[in-house]
Amino acid sequence: MGAWLVLEKWMTPKLFEDTQSEDEYYLAHDMDEERYEEKIKTHRAEFITEGDFVKIAALGFNIVRIPVPYFIFNDRPPFIGCIAELDRAFNWAEANGLKILIDLHTSPYNQNAFDNGGISGVCKWAQHPEEVDFVLSVLMRLAGRYKARNGLWGIEILNEPLTPKMWDIIKPQEQFPPREEKMAEGSAPISFDFLYNFYTKAYNELRMVLPKDKVIVLHDGFDLSMWKDFFQGQNFDNVMLDIHHYLVFDKDPSTENLKGYTAHLKQLGEQISEVSQYVPVVTGEWSLFNHFISKLTPNPLHAKDPLERAEQEAEIKAFYESLWEASVSAWNNGEGYFYWTYKLNIDTVNEPEKFGMDCWDLSRALAKRWGHI
Amino acid sequence: MGAWLVLEKWMTPKLFEDTQSEDEYYLAHDMDEERYEEKIKTHRAEFITEGDFVKIAALGFNIVRIPVPYFIFNDRPPFIGCIAELDRAFNWAEANGLKILIDLHTSPYNQNAFDNGGISGVCKWAQHPEEVDFVLSVLMRLAGRYKARNGLWGIEILNEPLTPKMWDIIKPQEQFPPREEKMAEGSAPISFDFLYNFYTKAYNELRMVLPKDKVIVLHDGFDLSMWKDFFQGQNFDNVMLDIHHYLVFDKDPSTENLKGYTAHLKQLGEQISEVSQYVPVVTGEWSLFNHFISKLTPNPLHAKDPLERAEQEAEIKAFYESLWEASVSAWNNGEGYFYWTYKLNIDTVNEPEKFGMDCWDLSRALAKRWGHI
Repeated sequence: MGAWLVLEKWMTPKLFEDTQSEDEYYLAHDMDEERYEEKIKTHRAEFITEGDFVKIAALGFNIVRIPVPYFIFNDRPPFIGCIAELDRAFNWAEANGLKILIDLHTSPYNQNAFDNGGISGVCKWAQHPEEVDFVLSVLMRLAGRYKARNGLWGIEILNEPLTPKMWDIIKPQEQFPPREEKMAEGSAPISFDFLYNFYTKAYNELRMVLPKDKVIVLHDGFDLSMWKDFFQGQNFDNVMLDIHHYLVFDKDPSTENLKGYTAHLKQLGEQISEVSQYVPVVTGEWSLFNHFISKLTPNPLHAKDPLERAEQEAEIKAFYESLWEASVSAWNNGEGYFYWTYKLNIDTVNEPEKFGMDCWDLSRALAKRWGHI
Repeated sequence: MGAWLVLEKWMTPKLFEDTQSEDEYYLAHDMDEERYEEKIKTHRAEFITEGDFVKIAALGFNIVRIPVPYFIFNDRPPFIGCIAELDRAFNWAEANGLKILIDLHTSPYNQNAFDNGGISGVCKWAQHPEEVDFVLSVLMRLAGRYKARNGLWGIEILNEPLTPKMWDIIKPQEQFPPREEKMAEGSAPISFDFLYNFYTKAYNELRMVLPKDKVIVLHDGFDLSMWKDFFQGQNFDNVMLDIHHYLVFDKDPSTENLKGYTAHLKQLGEQISEVSQYVPVVTGEWSLFNHFISKLTPNPLHAKDPLERAEQEAEIKAFYESLWEASVSAWNNGEGYFYWTYKLNIDTVNEPEKFGMDCWDLSRALAKRWGHI
């Protein structure tokens, strides 16, 4: 359930219209205080409502992963907290037989340099011990608040800490250039030494508060190969390892097609089976989005002839259906999956260059029957 | 598609939180200009998006009725126009095989004294000839803008002008008390003489611009018995008479049950058949909402036992399914129906006194399978 309590410009571009801001950090800092408050409160009240939980349950899902920001408790001005929204969501979830995975998605100074980590191009959280403690305190406050709730499925310690190997592949500061060089200075990937330590400490503290039936979720830092020794050396209760594999990470054009994607997913499925021998694996994010469809030329949205258009839609649907099957098969070698994301607000008709991005929106993908639960 | 370009407090109460405003008129006048702009722009960008048109088409609908305000062209400050939103909606509709009925829902000084007519407790539009002309000019600008669009199904001249008999039954100024006595002074129902004249003039002007395949819709003023002579004396092309029958108009508790509702709907269906002999009738609004369900005691939302809760939900579902059938049977004696409304943002879980109001939300009603297309 992205783009609700944690903003990403590409998911709700209208919220960033008429601003110079590329991420939520600068949106809050750039805007006049009153305007920002009005914008963010209206967004939170309207983007996700009780009705969405009714629909998610009706679609057959059982757990909702909700990204939350580090300032959720309203102690980091100019940001505005959102614990009241999460409280309401727990009531909606419980009334509809759903459970919630709380996912701490951002940190001060950012853990991955992505726009969605709090501030683009900056990755210095792990270098600030006081902010590492602050993140722990947010987690403990969340655990304390919801530990007895039937609607709590689990807590994810921190989304996508970016570790060295993937840092070099993704080059986050190229994709998400920092706005202020000084802020970005000293940014570096999160080392596995740090991450092992931090996860162990966070697990130990959280487990003191959280009943055993509540899951504690650790993101793999985008490197599934680094966890065997760690988990074999621990005695964790009810922990899962979260992986996020998007098809867009693949930069080799020769494999950017259904055959390539399917082969890649098959291999991933095998890796998930292997890792599952020492820790349960959950796919906390995935999406149908891929460059084969998004780069189709000519853009199918430009087809004027309705018949031609219908044919292209049918082909795209068949492609997505196969991709959905291959993906879900892979994820089902682990504990299951969460789609990224339930909903987004993009406009592919009025902005045809966004063709293909609509599949990021699960509610639309299911309406189009590109997949099924 | 209520509550998008025309606000009603009960449908999106969060937008009115922290204000003293009971309707859109005072919301625009009470709020600081910048805050109002931020609120209304965010609402319009998020409440309805391209994705909704995808879902409406996937559900099997073919036409969307979109209420618009008289200030749509941005010529009545402090209100903010919304023609860009309607432009985008036409592109969304056409891309998804849907058509649009533009419904002019409000007028300066209001045509019905409802909150949704523009300003609560005031009904003086018909007494201001310059505003009658203004409304005609809005209609003509809409017709000129969209006349050649494949996505235009028709234009509804004016929503729910309140005529004398129904004025006495509904007592709109009791339900929607005016905030300023002086503004309300002189309010009166719209006479049929005025309405016949106005509709004839509006029809003649619109038909000069609109191709014959575009429908011109006239609301019946809540009095279906008053139209035989009018239509038999005219030679209109492609006109439909719009009726809105809600079950809450019935104030007799002895008939506030499924039997009573069904009998009432049967009678309505017969009346629709009769009127259809001289003018096609369309149900431009209807809803499952009824006081039998909304007044159930104890409130089923308070049931703690999941089994008890499930039983009650099943009973409510059966009730709604029967009501849906009876309603649609009646409307199908005419040309068809539009449900009021596609979506609203109310919270029955956190505000249990709103129990039963969720059925106003078609997207939720269909997710719960209370009806089917």
